[in-house]
Amino acid sequence: MNDERFRKQLEFSLELDKEKNIFRQTHLSGHGRNENDAEHAWHMAIMAWLLREYANTELDITRTMLMILIHDVVEIDAGDTYAYDPEGKETQKERELKAAERLFGLLPEDQGKELRSLWDEFEKYETPESRFAHTMDNFQPMLLNDSNNGDDWAAHGIARTQVEKRNEKTASGSEAIWSYMQTVIDKHVAGGSLKSGC
Amino acid sequence: MNDERFRKQLEFSLELDKEKNIFRQTHLSGHGRNENDAEHAWHMAIMAWLLREYANTELDITRTMLMILIHDVVEIDAGDTYAYDPEGKETQKERELKAAERLFGLLPEDQGKELRSLWDEFEKYETPESRFAHTMDNFQPMLLNDSNNGDDWAAHGIARTQVEKRNEKTASGSEAIWSYMQTVIDKHVAGGSLKSGC
Repeated sequence: MNDERFRKQLEFSLELDKEKNIFRQTHLSGHGRNENDAEHAWHMAIMAWLLREYANTELDITRTMLMILIHDVVEIDAGDTYAYDPEGKETQKERELKAAERLFGLLPEDQGKELRSLWDEFEKYETPESRFAHTMDNFQPMLLNDSNNGDDWAAHGIARTQVEKRNEKTASGSEAIWSYMQTVIDKHVAGGSLKSGC
Repeated sequence: MNDERFRKQLEFSLELDKEKNIFRQTHLSGHGRNENDAEHAWHMAIMAWLLREYANTELDITRTMLMILIHDVVEIDAGDTYAYDPEGKETQKERELKAAERLFGLLPEDQGKELRSLWDEFEKYETPESRFAHTMDNFQPMLLNDSNNGDDWAAHGIARTQVEKRNEKTASGSEAIWSYMQTVIDKHVAGGSLKSGC
């Protein structure tokens, strides 16, 4: 064992722990507390494995799962930016790039490069794996929110058009899942938790 | 899309959410709150990828990570059994087997069988993947506990021999990591957070 290499791996591993303190706007099912990034990533990774048959293109599921597990690591420094927060969105990219430099830089060079490259791939939204990872990133909170009668949307006064805008590329990961998500949106517009206007 | 199959996959996916409410005895770093099972599994899965080079035998990392992600699912019904709770340990197996029947039974048959078989493999502790998954299951909480000056051990009055007993097969997943863990144990016995007796 190379002690310096192992020390770096442990330093990054311990740093990861902080992701459990980054809370999102989504609430757990059963009208529970806010969800944190680590739980969200865990849930998405299993869902990606379960639902991979609905991806538009065959996936490298290992790369997809690892990408999902680390996709929010940058929020340890940059914080969670709510999907419907236009001001936060403006500075998000810069904050997250700085975080990626610091966090992946803790690792031995080869592993830092590999995880950074996976994170960049997720952000670029171009490969089948990153597209499906984004589909899960949008579908997992919708599954919870749907189970809570759309309360997360209602609490923020969100409109159908905002959800559609956020999901404009969701079908590029899975037409089938996006098709189901549209029925969820329709249901919540009809039920009043999602505004029908803009 | 087969609607019935998809419905089962979503039912299981939503059920998974409950794992975020199963709290463990381990505390987050920075003397934080108790950790839950979902966070623990997420942390272990990334650590397994990062530290796989220290496994005694080459691993199928996809199977290892998926096994880790689902290894505590049964605790949704059976609850968390503290590693040093002899009474809980007595009924643990029975409670967990019943939980596995119900939970994996929610899935379409092929996926239910596949995840059940992975969970059985973890429990049997025989393959390189399950051995390394157990190494992570013991090392991840030790990493957090070490960062908190061994407070989780001190709070329960745990002795070195109990930690060694719990870890009697840890080296079968990774001699190198167990060797490091022994230095952590020595440090905390010297520091007093771990009792030197029985």
